[in-house]
Amino acid sequence: MARVGTDYSFKPPRFFLDNQPLTFFDRRQPMEVESLSCNPNNGACPTLGELLKRVGDANGDDTPTHQVLEMEDSEPRSLPLPFVLSFTNLTYSVKTRRKMSFPTCFRWKNNRLGASADPVEQSENNNYSNTKILLNDISGEARDGEILAVLGASGSGKSTLIDALANRIAKGSLKGSTTLNGEPLESRLLKVISAYVMQDDLLFPMLTVEETLMFSAEFRLPRSLSKSKKKARVQALIDQLGLRNAAKTVIGDEGHRGVSGGERRRVSIGTDIIHDPIILFLDEPTSGLDSTSAFMVVKVLQRIAQSGSIVIMSIHQPSYRIIGLLDRMIFLSRGQTVYSGSPSSLPPFFAEFGHPIPENENRTEFALDLIRELEGSPGGTKALVEFNKSNRNLPRNDDPDRQGLLSLKDAISASISRGKLVSGTTNNDSNPTSTVSTFANPFWVEVAVLSRRSVTNTRRMPELFGIRLGAILVTGFILATMFYHLDNSPKGIQERLGFFAFAMSTIFYTCADALPVFLQERYVFMRETAYNAYRRSSYVLSHSIVVIPSLIFLSFAFAATTFWAVGLDGGAKGFFFFFGTIMAAFWAGSSFVTFLSGVVSHVMLGYTVVVAILAYFLLFSGFFITRDRIPVYWLWFHYISLVKYPYEGVLQNEFDDSTKCFVRGVQMFDNTPLEVVPTAMKVKLLKTLSSSLGVNITSTTCVTTGADILMQQGVTDLSKWNCLWITIAWGFFFRILFYFSLLLGSKNKRR
Amino acid sequence: MARVGTDYSFKPPRFFLDNQPLTFFDRRQPMEVESLSCNPNNGACPTLGELLKRVGDANGDDTPTHQVLEMEDSEPRSLPLPFVLSFTNLTYSVKTRRKMSFPTCFRWKNNRLGASADPVEQSENNNYSNTKILLNDISGEARDGEILAVLGASGSGKSTLIDALANRIAKGSLKGSTTLNGEPLESRLLKVISAYVMQDDLLFPMLTVEETLMFSAEFRLPRSLSKSKKKARVQALIDQLGLRNAAKTVIGDEGHRGVSGGERRRVSIGTDIIHDPIILFLDEPTSGLDSTSAFMVVKVLQRIAQSGSIVIMSIHQPSYRIIGLLDRMIFLSRGQTVYSGSPSSLPPFFAEFGHPIPENENRTEFALDLIRELEGSPGGTKALVEFNKSNRNLPRNDDPDRQGLLSLKDAISASISRGKLVSGTTNNDSNPTSTVSTFANPFWVEVAVLSRRSVTNTRRMPELFGIRLGAILVTGFILATMFYHLDNSPKGIQERLGFFAFAMSTIFYTCADALPVFLQERYVFMRETAYNAYRRSSYVLSHSIVVIPSLIFLSFAFAATTFWAVGLDGGAKGFFFFFGTIMAAFWAGSSFVTFLSGVVSHVMLGYTVVVAILAYFLLFSGFFITRDRIPVYWLWFHYISLVKYPYEGVLQNEFDDSTKCFVRGVQMFDNTPLEVVPTAMKVKLLKTLSSSLGVNITSTTCVTTGADILMQQGVTDLSKWNCLWITIAWGFFFRILFYFSLLLGSKNKRR
Repeated sequence: MARVGTDYSFKPPRFFLDNQPLTFFDRRQPMEVESLSCNPNNGACPTLGELLKRVGDANGDDTPTHQVLEMEDSEPRSLPLPFVLSFTNLTYSVKTRRKMSFPTCFRWKNNRLGASADPVEQSENNNYSNTKILLNDISGEARDGEILAVLGASGSGKSTLIDALANRIAKGSLKGSTTLNGEPLESRLLKVISAYVMQDDLLFPMLTVEETLMFSAEFRLPRSLSKSKKKARVQALIDQLGLRNAAKTVIGDEGHRGVSGGERRRVSIGTDIIHDPIILFLDEPTSGLDSTSAFMVVKVLQRIAQSGSIVIMSIHQPSYRIIGLLDRMIFLSRGQTVYSGSPSSLPPFFAEFGHPIPENENRTEFALDLIRELEGSPGGTKALVEFNKSNRNLPRNDDPDRQGLLSLKDAISASISRGKLVSGTTNNDSNPTSTVSTFANPFWVEVAVLSRRSVTNTRRMPELFGIRLGAILVTGFILATMFYHLDNSPKGIQERLGFFAFAMSTIFYTCADALPVFLQERYVFMRETAYNAYRRSSYVLSHSIVVIPSLIFLSFAFAATTFWAVGLDGGAKGFFFFFGTIMAAFWAGSSFVTFLSGVVSHVMLGYTVVVAILAYFLLFSGFFITRDRIPVYWLWFHYISLVKYPYEGVLQNEFDDSTKCFVRGVQMFDNTPLEVVPTAMKVKLLKTLSSSLGVNITSTTCVTTGADILMQQGVTDLSKWNCLWITIAWGFFFRILFYFSLLLGSKNKRR
Repeated sequence: MARVGTDYSFKPPRFFLDNQPLTFFDRRQPMEVESLSCNPNNGACPTLGELLKRVGDANGDDTPTHQVLEMEDSEPRSLPLPFVLSFTNLTYSVKTRRKMSFPTCFRWKNNRLGASADPVEQSENNNYSNTKILLNDISGEARDGEILAVLGASGSGKSTLIDALANRIAKGSLKGSTTLNGEPLESRLLKVISAYVMQDDLLFPMLTVEETLMFSAEFRLPRSLSKSKKKARVQALIDQLGLRNAAKTVIGDEGHRGVSGGERRRVSIGTDIIHDPIILFLDEPTSGLDSTSAFMVVKVLQRIAQSGSIVIMSIHQPSYRIIGLLDRMIFLSRGQTVYSGSPSSLPPFFAEFGHPIPENENRTEFALDLIRELEGSPGGTKALVEFNKSNRNLPRNDDPDRQGLLSLKDAISASISRGKLVSGTTNNDSNPTSTVSTFANPFWVEVAVLSRRSVTNTRRMPELFGIRLGAILVTGFILATMFYHLDNSPKGIQERLGFFAFAMSTIFYTCADALPVFLQERYVFMRETAYNAYRRSSYVLSHSIVVIPSLIFLSFAFAATTFWAVGLDGGAKGFFFFFGTIMAAFWAGSSFVTFLSGVVSHVMLGYTVVVAILAYFLLFSGFFITRDRIPVYWLWFHYISLVKYPYEGVLQNEFDDSTKCFVRGVQMFDNTPLEVVPTAMKVKLLKTLSSSLGVNITSTTCVTTGADILMQQGVTDLSKWNCLWITIAWGFFFRILFYFSLLLGSKNKRR
C-alpha cells in the first residue's frame, strides 16, 4: 500500500472554522529548539521538565500563549518516519450467551463507557450458537501525521478494532500482534503515550471550556511544569481545537445552555489530548454531529495528526468533505477487511472488482452500500475479502520504509524533545516504559485539584443544593408542626419514638436524591481514570471532603427546625448532640448512597435499591419491633441496620435524663384497660397499690423515667456516644467500600 | 417555479431495499373500479363503506392481500392535479423569556413530543431581548406525488415550518395562510386527512412489526372495513415500507433485540399512514439513521407520495442519493427562505448568485455551508434572501396549473374513491369536514383493542411482573419471619400495629416501581391520540382493566405469605378481608402512580415525588400519631392519607373480634412501671384492684379486647367495610384525575 498522506486531491476548496482562519502548524517549518533534541544513540536526553523549561526560556515567559504546540522537529518530512503502528492478523472471538433480558429502566448502562457489547451479534441473525468472530485476521498500519479511519456498517467490528488497538481487550482473548516501530506495545507504555476518546461527552456541565481544559492540564501535566506553561498549553489547545470563541462558555446540559454539540465533542477530545499523546484513538468522534460540526472535528483531528500523532478513528458515514481529510481507510464487514487503502484508490479498486463507482456518487456511500448488498447475497463478501487480500501489492514486513525507523525508545525521546507527550518525565532508563511516570501529580495535589473542580461545578448549580435543602426544610416543618410540643405522657413517649424513627429515615432518604449527581460524576471519573488522570484514592478522598460543608448546613437546618418545636430535651447540650447525630446520619447516608453509585450504574435501579434497603433498615432499627423481641435469626440485620445507631443515639439523648419524668401518678393507667376509669377512682387505686407494694405512690410521684423507657425499648446495648461514633464509622466504612467498588468496577476492558 | 416532480435526472443508478425488488404502484395503470368514482359535479359519492365493499366484491374476498393500496385512479397523470397545498407569508414569532434552569434529572422531557422549544433561541446569541422571529414571511407549495424537503442548519426554523403547516401552532400566533386546493384548511379536516410523524419512535417494544401495524389498523380504520381488508391493508403497507423480512420480528428495546433503527423508523411511519393520509408531515425522519437506512426511509416516502400523497419533511443532512429523491426544497436560514426550488435548479441559482458550486461537491452540503458562512458575515443572508425573492419567476396565484384544480371536497372524494384515506366514512354533506368522522371506531372497540394490545405487550415482558412479584414475596417473607406468630400481649399489639403500617406502606411503594412503564406507555399514547387514533377515555378504561389481573395475583401472594405466618385473626373470613384490603390498596396505589405518570413527565422526578408523598401518607396515617392527637391544622392531611384507610381496615379486621383477648390478668402491667414487679405480687395487686373497682379480675380475666385497642388507636370513625370501599373509591378517583391530566396535558401545540 502506497503512502497517501500527501495526496490532497480530495481537499475541498474552502475551509472555515467558526469564521476564523485556520492556522496550521507546519511540521516543515524549523524552530530554534535544535539544541534541545537529544542524541538518540547514547540516550542522553534531558528530562521533560528541563526541556520545557529551556523552551520557556527561549520563548520568554511573558509571551506564553500559542507556543507550546509549535515546538516542531527540525528535520524535513522526508527523514525516517518517527512512528509506525502495525497490527497483524488481529483475531478476536467471543462465546455467545443468551442475553439476560431486563426491563429497560433497570438495565446497566455499560455501553456509555465504551467497552460496548458485542457489535456483530446485534445485527446478525443468531445462526452460530457458540462462537462469534468479531475480528477476523485484520492487518494494517497507521503512521504519524495521518488519519486512519475504520469504516463499516453498525456491527461490522469498527469499535472492536479500535478497542483491540487501544488495548481495551483482555490479553488472552485477542490473537495477533500490535507493534509500534516494530517493537511490541506494552500495555503500560501504551496507556501513557496514547489517548482514547469515547463516543460520549462526559464533562462537568457547569465548567467553562477553558476551565475544563485547565483542570485536565492540572491532572495530566507534571507538577514540574509551571502554572503559566500549563495555561499556555491550554490556550494553544483552544486554538488548535477552534474553540477560541467558546472558551468562556460553560459546557452546559439539558437545563443550562452551553456550547454546541460539535464544540462539546472538541472539548472532549481536548481533555484527552492535553498531554499531546503520540497515538490518539477515537470511537465515532463525529456521531450525532451535523455535517459542518463533524467536518470541523475531523479537521481538528487532521491538525493533531499533523502535529506528529497517529490518529485512528472509527467513522460511520463520512461526508464528502471528511473523506478528503482521511489518509487511510479500512472497510470492515462482519469482522473482515474488505478494503484497505487510501480514499483515492477506492474507485480503481472497485472498478477492478467489477463494480465501478458511478461518477458523481459519494464513493464511501457506494462502497458501504455495495458491501451491505454483498452481505445479503448468498456468497457474502468472501469474493471481496479475497480480492482485497490479493490486491495488497506489498507484504507489510518488507516495507522499505520500515528500514529507516528509529527504535521505539529513541522515537519517543525524539518526540518528547519536539514537545510531544507533555505528561511524562523523561529519564535515562533504557526501558521505554519507565521514561514516563504513571501519574503526573502527587496524591495531595490531585485531591486539591479534584476538590476545587467539584466545588466550582457544584457552586454553579445552586438549584441542586436548593432542592435538597427544600426537601429537608419541608419535612422538618411538617414534623415540627405535627409533633408540636409533645407532652410527657405515655402517648407522648410513643410519639417521640415515632418522631425519631421518622426523622432518621427521612435523613437517609434525602441522601438518595444525590444519586443521579453521583452517577453522572462517576462517568467522568471512569473516563478520566481510564488513562491515569489521577488516583482513585484521590477521587474518593476529595469526594468525601467536598460533601461535608453541605451536610453541616443541611443537618443544622433540620435540627434547628425540629428540636425546639417538638420540645426535645437536653437544652443546648442536647441540641448539639441531636445536631451531631443528624450530621453523622447524613454522613453515613451519603457514604452509603455514594457506595451504591459505585456499584449500580443505572439511576432508577439505584433509587429502587436505596429505597428498599432503607425501608428494611427502618424495619429492623428497633422501632417497629424492639431488640429483645426480634427473632434470633434476624438479629444480625438489626445490627447492620444503619438506622439503628442514630435512632438509638437520639433516643438516649432524649431519655437519659434520670430526673425527668414521663409518667406521673395516675398517668400510669394511660394506655391500659384502666384508662377509662374516672380520675378519682384512679387516685384511689394508686393508694391501694401503694399499700400493697409498700411504696408511697401519689398523683405526682414519678413512675416512669427516661431510663425506664430506654429499658422498655431495648436501647441498652450502646451508650449514646458509641451510637454516634458507630454511625460515623459506618460512613467511613462505606467510603472504603466505594473505593474498592471503583477499583473493581472500572476495568474498562472487554473479556 | 416550474414543476419538477418528473425531473428524474438525480436518480441514482441502483436501488435495493432489503434485497427485494421494489414494486412500484404505478398511478397510470388503469383499474376496474371506474364505476366507483363519483361525479364531482353533483357530489353524489357512495360512502367509503360502500366503496370498499364493492371493491372487495370485485377483487373477491379470497384474495385479500396486496390489493387495497393498488386501487389507483383511472385518469392519466396529466389531468388536473388533485391536491396542491399552498402556504403564503407564514410568519411566527415568540416572546423570549429567561429559561428556568433545573438540574438535569428533574427536567421535563417535553421535547420528546415534537412540540419542541424555540429552535432559533438555541443557536443564536441572545441579542434581541424581546421578540424572536422564528418564521419570516415563508411562502411555497407542495403537490401530491412529490416530496417537499425543508433544509437548514439546526435552529433555522425547519421544525417550526413543519409545525406551522401541520397546524401544530396555536391559531393566534401564526400569521399568513395555508390553503389546500385554494380553500383554507380547517383544523379538524387537516387532522383527519393528514398524518404527522414525530422524530422519536414511540412504539410498544414487545409487539412485532406486523402486530404494531395491525393494531394501528384496528384503531384508525373504520369498523365497516372487514378484518380481512384491514389485514390486506397491513400486508400492503408492509411491502410498501419494505418491511417484509422484519414483519415477524418484535420492535425491541435496550433489553430485547428487535428490528434495526431504520426499520423501526419505517414502522413508525407506517403506524401513522395506516389510513393512507393525503398529507404526510415528517420531522427529521432520517435523523439518527445511517446513510443506507436513511435512503430507504426516503425511498419509502417517495413511494407514499407517488401513491397520491403530499409528503413534507424536514431533513438535516441529506446524502447525495436522498437528494435524488426530493422534488422540491426549501432552504431556511434564521426563519427566512434562502432558496426554494428543485434540487436541479440549485447549481444555476448559486452560480447566478456568484457562488458556483464546484463540480463533484455535494450541492446541499455546499449550500448549507455557504448559508452558514453568510450568517456569520456582517451582511448576513440578506442578499441571498433578496436574490431568492427576485428569482421567483411567477407570482403564485396566477399559476396556470391552479385553474384546473378540483374543489377541495371533490378532490377528497375523488381521492377516497381511489382508495386513499381509509379512515373516514363518506357522506353527502356539503361540508368537507364532515365527510370524515373524528374517530374510526366506537368506544368499546377501542377499549377492547387497547386492552388486547397492552396484554400482548405485557405478556412478552414477564420479567417486569417478575420483579414486582419478587419484591412483594421478599418483603412478605421478611415480614412473615420478622413478625412470626405474634403473641397476644401488649407488646404483640404494638408489633401488630407496626406490621400493618409497614405492610400497607410496602404495597404503595411497590406500585411506584411501575412508574417507568406507565411513562413509556404515555408517550405512545400522546403520539396516537394526537391524531385521533382513539379516545382518551378508552385508554383510561383499558389501562384500568388491564392492571387488575396482576394486582389480584400480587395481593394474593402477599396475603398468603403473611396472614398465617404472622398469626392474624379471623380465619378464612379474616383472610379474605385482608386479601381484599390489600387488593384495594394495590388498586388505589396503582391508580395514584398512574395519575402521577400523567402529571410528571420525568421518571426520577416522579419517583422522588411518589416516595415523598407516600412517606407523608404514612406519617399521617394514624400509626405514628393517633387521630385524636393529630394537631387540628393537620387533620385534613390525615383524611387524605391514602394509607389511613387500608391501615384502619386491616386493624379492624384484626381487632374487631370482641371475644378475643389481648391482655389478660397480670399482662395488664406490661409496658407500665409495674412490669418489673414479681408475678406473685402482680396477682396480689390484681386482687386489690378487683376489690377497689368492685369487679372480679383474676389472672385469666380479659382486661383488653380488640375493641379497646381500636379505641386507643383512634380507629373509630369508619367501619372496616367502609375503609375498604373508600380505598377502592380513591382508586377510581385517581383514575378520573388521570383522565383529566391526559385531557389537559396532551395539548400538542406551540403557543
